[in-house]
Amino acid sequence: MKHISILGSTGSIGTQTLEIIKQFPNEFKVVGLTTNKNSNLLLEQIKEFKPKAVAIMDKSKIDDLLNFSPCQVYSGIEGLNKIAAMQEADTIVNALVGSVGIEPTYNAIRSKKNIALANKETLVAAGSIIMEEVKKNKINLIPIDSEHSAIFQCLNGENINEASKITITCSGGPFKNYTKEQLENATLQAALKHPIWNMGNKITIDSATLMNKGFEVIEAHWLYGIAYEKIKVVIHPQSIIHSLVEFVDKSVIAQLGLPDMKIPIQYALAYPKRFENIQTPLDLVKIKTLEFREPDFEMFPCLKYAYEAGVAGGTLPAVTNAANEIAVYAFLDNKIKFLDVPRLIRKMMDEHNAIKNPSLKEIIEIDRKIKEETKNIIERKMVVEN
Amino acid sequence: MKHISILGSTGSIGTQTLEIIKQFPNEFKVVGLTTNKNSNLLLEQIKEFKPKAVAIMDKSKIDDLLNFSPCQVYSGIEGLNKIAAMQEADTIVNALVGSVGIEPTYNAIRSKKNIALANKETLVAAGSIIMEEVKKNKINLIPIDSEHSAIFQCLNGENINEASKITITCSGGPFKNYTKEQLENATLQAALKHPIWNMGNKITIDSATLMNKGFEVIEAHWLYGIAYEKIKVVIHPQSIIHSLVEFVDKSVIAQLGLPDMKIPIQYALAYPKRFENIQTPLDLVKIKTLEFREPDFEMFPCLKYAYEAGVAGGTLPAVTNAANEIAVYAFLDNKIKFLDVPRLIRKMMDEHNAIKNPSLKEIIEIDRKIKEETKNIIERKMVVEN
Repeated sequence: MKHISILGSTGSIGTQTLEIIKQFPNEFKVVGLTTNKNSNLLLEQIKEFKPKAVAIMDKSKIDDLLNFSPCQVYSGIEGLNKIAAMQEADTIVNALVGSVGIEPTYNAIRSKKNIALANKETLVAAGSIIMEEVKKNKINLIPIDSEHSAIFQCLNGENINEASKITITCSGGPFKNYTKEQLENATLQAALKHPIWNMGNKITIDSATLMNKGFEVIEAHWLYGIAYEKIKVVIHPQSIIHSLVEFVDKSVIAQLGLPDMKIPIQYALAYPKRFENIQTPLDLVKIKTLEFREPDFEMFPCLKYAYEAGVAGGTLPAVTNAANEIAVYAFLDNKIKFLDVPRLIRKMMDEHNAIKNPSLKEIIEIDRKIKEETKNIIERKMVVEN
Repeated sequence: MKHISILGSTGSIGTQTLEIIKQFPNEFKVVGLTTNKNSNLLLEQIKEFKPKAVAIMDKSKIDDLLNFSPCQVYSGIEGLNKIAAMQEADTIVNALVGSVGIEPTYNAIRSKKNIALANKETLVAAGSIIMEEVKKNKINLIPIDSEHSAIFQCLNGENINEASKITITCSGGPFKNYTKEQLENATLQAALKHPIWNMGNKITIDSATLMNKGFEVIEAHWLYGIAYEKIKVVIHPQSIIHSLVEFVDKSVIAQLGLPDMKIPIQYALAYPKRFENIQTPLDLVKIKTLEFREPDFEMFPCLKYAYEAGVAGGTLPAVTNAANEIAVYAFLDNKIKFLDVPRLIRKMMDEHNAIKNPSLKEIIEIDRKIKEETKNIIERKMVVEN
């Protein structure tokens, strides 16, 4: 039986993780849960899953829990770190959104927990440091992202040194057929209507700008130690093939499935086993057609910026991520236009003097600083139109 | 370095195998070769690859070799068996066409050779006996067929007991869009024009009737020990996805590549490694679209007959195979019409009293008998129109 703590249990991935855990009561036991500020849902989860301890990021809400929770309650980033490292857990599901996920992942790995990772920012901003700790502590880091879960599964029983190319598929998002003019005036409502995946708001906007795909390229680089020039992105509107690995002998292995996050979440929890579940099986005859085309790097510059940041390395990916995080939330708050997101990122990337081989502390400090600066620019309406 | 003998070195798979061996002189050494009757090509191959011994099936042609070959020469089925079991080889490529391939495979396995298997009839007619010997002698049997190589690769690092479905893809052959009337009058010339694969004549006709796919279902059953109801066939005209394995958690692994037999041949030779080669890589953006649809079991009854024979087991698959082999050669000789092939098979299947758990000797005897009877029916023009 695996003893699991979920960081971010009230979000989209967190709640789906709990639904899976419920299906396999003899395989999984919840020992820790955390939320950003959704104390009501966390209380319900505490009642149902009876964890040993919980944490709430928003310290102002701790009393909501203290008054009702039968279990230990922590708060703030220290609280998240407590849950990430607590003795009773062997597996940490990191379903946090944003760079807040970096430090708890780092602490969980150093406490020798296996990690099921949905938090992209961990590897985007601190890939080098995280992967070093993964090796040092000999733990399993299993990606939850459908694309990286696909690559992980394609590499099962294979030698990564015999892989010659990784192709990450991309639905193209809601704006894949938009013109430049339509993109300029893209509404929040339209951006939140993802054609395939039902996800949290932040990642849905990242999918509309293709920054999500760009971050996945950086993650793949770190997860599989593969050079950026060997990582390709291909638009595949049906999102049935979740990613592909080409080997040196020109044989290609792919992982497929209906677009259903529960499949990769369950895979990460059950690894190295597979458990029979009630998810809908893929029927290619019903799907009929799978299509593929090149992504448009000019229309979706975020994808280009992510490759650029990845190749440059150092603190640049953390800067790209921090600027993106603030820009996306500003777009979600109707404070900026859709194309202001890449403009803000470009501006922050251009103005940054990258540090090579930063420490975790430096990354977290730069993340904080860039977020603050990006906020300031947005408040002063300094976004440059190009 | 692997020491390889090729049974059927002058055919399509045989010559492609030699082309691959040529590319990796430090990995592979040819020690034995055989041909049915193409003594001229075999002599050229002897000159180039310098095997220790060769065999020619057609005994009347042995002098062509004896007079010119610097190496040991054998003939007939005894000759094939000699090459299959010769001490100097560790790996036998069985690229024979037809049931003649069964006995040499059996002997090679009992001599503890690893097998790279292209000969379908071995598993179709004698799957139970062959797989028992594979286990007993702890050898690797690696399929060369693109579909089975795909399944084999999909199962790398996986637990076969966690596989819930195998989907074998099928180009549909040259007649996939034919009407019943067009099929009735299908010409040999049209049947030999396979839309995707460039193969030997026998297998090209088997691909037009879909018997080839039916045989692959039986092979998959034996190779992977999976029940027939878990093996599906799907029409995929582009032949890019070579087959797929669905697991109990609804995750699907597929193997893809351009339709190029050298990729699975090389995989079988190099296993468990992968060697970098000069084959053309797959570019999904160039391919653009992959399509899938159900096969039509009424239009292509051979597929139905193969499932029926597989499920019934015993000697029935050997009967189906023997009747098919003779019918296909008769069609290639313009002696019967295209739809006479399934009619002949149906007739032979209906008239056969199947033996359960036959010995290899019984299978070989039934193969001989059914071939003779099928020939007699064709000679007497007794094919029943339905």
